[in-house]
Amino acid sequence: MKNRSDRYNNDPSEDKYEKIIDLAMRRGFFWPSYEIYGGVAGLYDLGPLGVLLKRRIIDLWRKIFIERHQDYVVEIETPIITPKKVLEASGHVEHFTDPIVECTSCGRKYRADHLIKDVLNINVEGLSIEELTRIIREKDVRCPVCGGVLGDVKRFSLLFTTTIGPYSDSIGFLRPEAAQGMFTAFKRVYEAMRNRFPIGIAQIGRVGRNEISPRQSMIRLREFTIMEIEFFFDPKNPECPLLDDVRDVKINILRGEEKLRGEEKPSSYKIIEAVEEKIISQPWQAYWMAISQEFVQRLGVSPDNIFFEEKLPHERAHYAQQVFDQMVKVSRWGWIEVSGHAYRTNYDLSRHQLFSGADLSIFRRYEKPLIIKKRKILLDKNAVLRIYGEEAPRIFRELSGKNLDELATKIVEENGYIIIDGVKYNKEIFKIEDVEEKIYGERIIPHVVEPSFGAERLLYITLDNAYVEEEDRIVLKLPKEIAPIQVAVLPLLEREDMIKVSKKLKNMLIEEGFYVLYDESGSIGRRYARADEIGVPYAVTIDHQTLLDETVTVRFRDTKEQIRIKISELAKFLEKEFKK
Amino acid sequence: MKNRSDRYNNDPSEDKYEKIIDLAMRRGFFWPSYEIYGGVAGLYDLGPLGVLLKRRIIDLWRKIFIERHQDYVVEIETPIITPKKVLEASGHVEHFTDPIVECTSCGRKYRADHLIKDVLNINVEGLSIEELTRIIREKDVRCPVCGGVLGDVKRFSLLFTTTIGPYSDSIGFLRPEAAQGMFTAFKRVYEAMRNRFPIGIAQIGRVGRNEISPRQSMIRLREFTIMEIEFFFDPKNPECPLLDDVRDVKINILRGEEKLRGEEKPSSYKIIEAVEEKIISQPWQAYWMAISQEFVQRLGVSPDNIFFEEKLPHERAHYAQQVFDQMVKVSRWGWIEVSGHAYRTNYDLSRHQLFSGADLSIFRRYEKPLIIKKRKILLDKNAVLRIYGEEAPRIFRELSGKNLDELATKIVEENGYIIIDGVKYNKEIFKIEDVEEKIYGERIIPHVVEPSFGAERLLYITLDNAYVEEEDRIVLKLPKEIAPIQVAVLPLLEREDMIKVSKKLKNMLIEEGFYVLYDESGSIGRRYARADEIGVPYAVTIDHQTLLDETVTVRFRDTKEQIRIKISELAKFLEKEFKK
Repeated sequence: MKNRSDRYNNDPSEDKYEKIIDLAMRRGFFWPSYEIYGGVAGLYDLGPLGVLLKRRIIDLWRKIFIERHQDYVVEIETPIITPKKVLEASGHVEHFTDPIVECTSCGRKYRADHLIKDVLNINVEGLSIEELTRIIREKDVRCPVCGGVLGDVKRFSLLFTTTIGPYSDSIGFLRPEAAQGMFTAFKRVYEAMRNRFPIGIAQIGRVGRNEISPRQSMIRLREFTIMEIEFFFDPKNPECPLLDDVRDVKINILRGEEKLRGEEKPSSYKIIEAVEEKIISQPWQAYWMAISQEFVQRLGVSPDNIFFEEKLPHERAHYAQQVFDQMVKVSRWGWIEVSGHAYRTNYDLSRHQLFSGADLSIFRRYEKPLIIKKRKILLDKNAVLRIYGEEAPRIFRELSGKNLDELATKIVEENGYIIIDGVKYNKEIFKIEDVEEKIYGERIIPHVVEPSFGAERLLYITLDNAYVEEEDRIVLKLPKEIAPIQVAVLPLLEREDMIKVSKKLKNMLIEEGFYVLYDESGSIGRRYARADEIGVPYAVTIDHQTLLDETVTVRFRDTKEQIRIKISELAKFLEKEFKK
Repeated sequence: MKNRSDRYNNDPSEDKYEKIIDLAMRRGFFWPSYEIYGGVAGLYDLGPLGVLLKRRIIDLWRKIFIERHQDYVVEIETPIITPKKVLEASGHVEHFTDPIVECTSCGRKYRADHLIKDVLNINVEGLSIEELTRIIREKDVRCPVCGGVLGDVKRFSLLFTTTIGPYSDSIGFLRPEAAQGMFTAFKRVYEAMRNRFPIGIAQIGRVGRNEISPRQSMIRLREFTIMEIEFFFDPKNPECPLLDDVRDVKINILRGEEKLRGEEKPSSYKIIEAVEEKIISQPWQAYWMAISQEFVQRLGVSPDNIFFEEKLPHERAHYAQQVFDQMVKVSRWGWIEVSGHAYRTNYDLSRHQLFSGADLSIFRRYEKPLIIKKRKILLDKNAVLRIYGEEAPRIFRELSGKNLDELATKIVEENGYIIIDGVKYNKEIFKIEDVEEKIYGERIIPHVVEPSFGAERLLYITLDNAYVEEEDRIVLKLPKEIAPIQVAVLPLLEREDMIKVSKKLKNMLIEEGFYVLYDESGSIGRRYARADEIGVPYAVTIDHQTLLDETVTVRFRDTKEQIRIKISELAKFLEKEFKK
């Protein structure tokens, strides 16, 4: 995933953002890491509810992208620590940088394009460091803190650098994407899966990006969890057999050429149209874009608030030939990228093949063998002896190092002689014949499309999307399948008999595999409110009647509707509800 | 988790180890990372089967340690990247080191204690660098590669070091344990959970340890996944209300004092005995040790192959007052640590309180308020004016800055005067009275016990434990609940009708949430063998009879027994089997 193009749309909903942050800190979704030491920009902790929500998002991703696609996709796990040569080969050492500028007076450092954007309100994404320096000089952009003169813009590597082992020349980095682990392990996976092809290799894991000055809370982190698939396919056979399943799915696309014309409004296409009209160049890319939209919708986002933005060449990562960012609308930040869809061609595998010397090609078997006609040339040793006599050893010597097969295609005949490398040989010493050869296949380097998500951003957008204020309450209207806590168990009164039944019920539900909020203190209204604001879909209340007839009330979060149900049927009821 | 004391027991089962490694590479459990670049010691990839196995191990840990203990334990997630001051406070910058020695001739570096152990076969764990240097000098230990003279032994930091952001003085480390994230976030979690106490904070995540020269495959990694709970409790009320659930569980313990006497054989104790006899000083520690043994048993390890080794003071980490390592027997490496159980006292919270200035104490409410008698002293302003007249302002000035309450306990009376800081005041200007005050509680810094596991080691031990050779086959007799692939679906013959039914069945099982191996090529015997060696518990075969009556055979991995069952009942049957 590469996202170097966040927008700072100003939205009147700043308020909502503040409220979500407040809720997140107060109830334990997330908060700045190492707060007691003043925090570190771009690092966040997930609290108990945040961990649960994130895990449910990851589980849903795994279900949709991997488990449903068991015939194609497998998951692996590779280290975060990556030796230098891997990221040299991938181009990250050279390209994974941001422009930085330092104040010559106070020494403060800024991300140059963001500073220019903030001060001059012009978009300078993708400009060279020379161009950025020129703008700073011409417009006399100064240090916003001390007013000092800024130095020249330089490139700043976003790779966290470290040393592996005791030798200081053994440089390592924290990976900025999971992808390189899949590329370097491609051959192993391919073979362990008994040459399955096409094949998707998925990975979910931490990455590090040493941002210059991250300031967008959970949106731009220095460390986060990435969920990526590298999908390897044959560029000569790029069809996606699953495309039919999504052919009529509609997605909104804003094309690069439209952006160049100044258009900002995406248009709706059926997947099949986008493929047939070559708007999305690779069918497998289109397929994963449809699946990605399904996934984001299941997190609760309406399709109206989703579109795919094609990136222009200067906005694309160095490895990509076509890129779409999946954009989702949130309060405060406006449209933000939640996934990147890159057609990486065979760039990465080719580079690793070049840098490592390992063969990363696979064998493409033809449906039926190709038959090719080939001229073969053979040396007739007896003829050599007969014609050249004492000179025969010289002839053998001269011709022994030559690849006659190769020469066969380009022999020159002249007056009964054959000329090889400028030397004339009597034609009679060669036997030339035309033969047929069967070619069963060829070696190719697979091409790759990559859908890539960041889990913490998704966590943020689900909260942003679910947060609702209603009359006197805050409700997180999270889709049931990702709600962190699934059931609240509440004794109506703080009475021993009700508490006893409630605790038994709570333990029963825990044993059934539910995450349960047990809450006995305060008025029932306040407890419902506490459950609502963390998105618990069902609240079970134990009251007077429970003690008489072993029934409880089940209250639905979104409607506040209540029904009465037997305790013995509760687990089954809830299980069904969660499957709905 | 701290484990600086691996053993190199020599076992005749080297063979088995080689076979497991071969299986792991061939079938895709794990392999060295970045192999195409020659690999990096201590870094391993998990392949498709490895990821599944590891995830099931982690899920089981979460089920047993967190979900079952929802009343106590919550999970959080904090960053791997840790600013320097956090690990200075925790003592890791100072203490988390290994002894290193460099060859003065060729420059090669060695872990000094391991080198001495290898060359002289003596255990020098915990010796100071001066002592290690002395041994090297006295015994003339040389560089094992070039024979050169070795330099002095030094301390080598095992922390991976990096820089956070663009300023070079902003040093960060990769965390060597997840624990510090829980300590620094303790107050937030405690408050988000509405002052729940005692409280366990769990975390599952990556850690980095920059080992000098790791050489034990999956046993000693430079990057791995840790699973830890920091369990916070009141040292004045250290009882564990759950202890009763495990009181009769038997565990094997080798005590520190027994080790000092040269004993090597652990003894069996009931948990309740170990607590009552103070062998395990903290009841919560004992509780988590019992749970840890249950967990390891559910991974397939027999209790005979488990014991807890108490660490001696010089073997313990700097923060710990009592430590037990849970040891499990495996081929090749003999007894290895799979979990560490440390009583960390309030060391970490106290240090963070000291270094950050934040208040990390919590309020301990007394069952009933303490009533204490207190002498109070008040200034009688009228008396001051009356007695001192024009000098009154001086008296007010002098006494205004004084804390009279504090003085009340130590006033000195002399001839009708009261002496404060060496100045005499007329006694009449003070009113002294004895009052009663209610004290509702006090502030305490919680104590902590920590059970800590490494997921990759557990993955290795489960494979080592499950690997069996039987007649003509290799079988991984993994417990069902952690088997990576749950069902194999196999058409008896490569016939279109059988394949069609098989694929439908496979898709049905995938939809039911199973991980399925579909395999149609080769003899049925070879396919059973392929399923057995990766531990698939059930193989479903579609044969001639299936086409007639919609039944299939289900073959049991361990017994090779087969039963016939209706397709319509298959999913339910398997579900039940996995719940057994």
